[in-house]
Amino acid sequence: MTHIEIIFLGTTASIPTKYRNHAAIYLKYQSENEYSFLFDCGEGTQRQIFSSGMNFMRLDNIFITHWHADHFAGLLGLLETMSLEKRTKPLYVYGPEASKFIEVLSELGYSSKGFKLIPKDVPFDGREETILTETDEYQIISVPVSHGVPAVAYAFAEKDRIKIDKKKAAKYGMPKKGRPYKTLKEKGFVIYKGREIKLEDVSFVEKGKKVVYSGDTKPVKNLIELAKDADVLIHDSTYFEQEFDERKHSTAEDAIDVFIKAGAKQLVLTHISRRYQSEKELYELLKTIVKKKNLDMKKIKIARDFMHLKI
Amino acid sequence: MTHIEIIFLGTTASIPTKYRNHAAIYLKYQSENEYSFLFDCGEGTQRQIFSSGMNFMRLDNIFITHWHADHFAGLLGLLETMSLEKRTKPLYVYGPEASKFIEVLSELGYSSKGFKLIPKDVPFDGREETILTETDEYQIISVPVSHGVPAVAYAFAEKDRIKIDKKKAAKYGMPKKGRPYKTLKEKGFVIYKGREIKLEDVSFVEKGKKVVYSGDTKPVKNLIELAKDADVLIHDSTYFEQEFDERKHSTAEDAIDVFIKAGAKQLVLTHISRRYQSEKELYELLKTIVKKKNLDMKKIKIARDFMHLKI
Repeated sequence: MTHIEIIFLGTTASIPTKYRNHAAIYLKYQSENEYSFLFDCGEGTQRQIFSSGMNFMRLDNIFITHWHADHFAGLLGLLETMSLEKRTKPLYVYGPEASKFIEVLSELGYSSKGFKLIPKDVPFDGREETILTETDEYQIISVPVSHGVPAVAYAFAEKDRIKIDKKKAAKYGMPKKGRPYKTLKEKGFVIYKGREIKLEDVSFVEKGKKVVYSGDTKPVKNLIELAKDADVLIHDSTYFEQEFDERKHSTAEDAIDVFIKAGAKQLVLTHISRRYQSEKELYELLKTIVKKKNLDMKKIKIARDFMHLKI
Repeated sequence: MTHIEIIFLGTTASIPTKYRNHAAIYLKYQSENEYSFLFDCGEGTQRQIFSSGMNFMRLDNIFITHWHADHFAGLLGLLETMSLEKRTKPLYVYGPEASKFIEVLSELGYSSKGFKLIPKDVPFDGREETILTETDEYQIISVPVSHGVPAVAYAFAEKDRIKIDKKKAAKYGMPKKGRPYKTLKEKGFVIYKGREIKLEDVSFVEKGKKVVYSGDTKPVKNLIELAKDADVLIHDSTYFEQEFDERKHSTAEDAIDVFIKAGAKQLVLTHISRRYQSEKELYELLKTIVKKKNLDMKKIKIARDFMHLKI
């Protein structure tokens, strides 16, 4: 079985608090291989990674949602530390207008890095989903969102997997294990004891897991589509009261509406304004909205720093 | 009485640890007025200021020792937060080549600040002390140091104060308090009950307090001069073992030699490598050096985050 771990490294809105650092999410994907990704990299992210027990030397791809300082200011120090730790592998930094800002970043201060920093510009206009990187096992996808500056959301999407149904296979006379299964997967059929068995007869499709992260945004249709049937939607929820609704961010109610329309399984609210100092207060406000929307509270979490999800 | 408070916000060398954040020192000077200064601004400094109970909105002058990321990467977020907090007062950022790097910094990311950011280039060649800013009450002085890139040390130097010796004043027939003292201070003399009394006859000089911060450096003669009779010398002490002596930093022994030569009153060792994880270990290593140098342990402190000194 594959699994995805999500570690929230920072969950505040633009200004940090004693308990919430700037935006950053570490995602670890375990399949036959292990992959680590970072989504956003607010100030202090390298130290949050230390404290979380994760390993930033495993990161080869960093995805920035947009170039507001609270989402990228930690890059400077993280890259510096990677270099001091003698990184030589290239590092890819994705984001809208990444080339422009990585160039500026590279001119800031005295530094000579022992590795290549490769910016990858992410489309931020229109409504198209873009596959940014993929392997046999997963894709990372972006869509433009709406935040007043070029901004995108990201999805980590595991690919669907064809799995053998051992009961069906037995019915077709297949052995319990062994070489015929390899052939079956490679060729789509196998001749076993003189009988042709097709892959589709003895297999089923295991749906890939999907995690979507909105970055900062107003509720947008793009995100509803990207989060369709997602296992986890992590959504901007700067305010928990509708009266603070403004043009650049979402409220908890906005996020819940996107979540319901997308039919996702779990919602995590993040990017929380420092006006909310107590978790109790946040849950009280959330309960009222959840009741109004006739939702199950179990489906919604409020992110906090170092929160760990496993799916 | 005036006093100076020094709050260590970050005490690690280039890489942060669980207990030590990046370099930054908050200095608060209380005289008739209150002044706040920040020396260096490593990543995460704004959050350290929150936690320390200090107030970054009182800062009008920030002094960067050199442009390695671990000494300035916190500027980005701090300036952003000042702007979100609706700062309108101009902010001065001092440092070698400050103009160059503040220009780059201003191009990094989307941001529109509601206040002016004014870079002040600090000389980093030669051996001259430079008075960077002064009032009737204090000066801030820089000298070039030696760190492989343009780098300086800073001193906060309170000016000497002329204080009335009440006993002497009584001898000269002055009243206990009142207007004659104002005239005495303003004119240097006063005619009281027909008799001329000179300021120097009834006063003494109270020596101004001085705090010196080395930034990152090899031990240098400049620093010995700047720290002459200082109340506190805060010195780079990346390593506590002489075998790690290298060309860009000081060891504890180097720092102690500078301290002794300068005849300063108190030494605080900072910028401590993460190879030292326990305070106990550091004090053991320090004791050996202190014994060899025939010094009083009370004169030396090892900085830790949120350490507070009052002089």
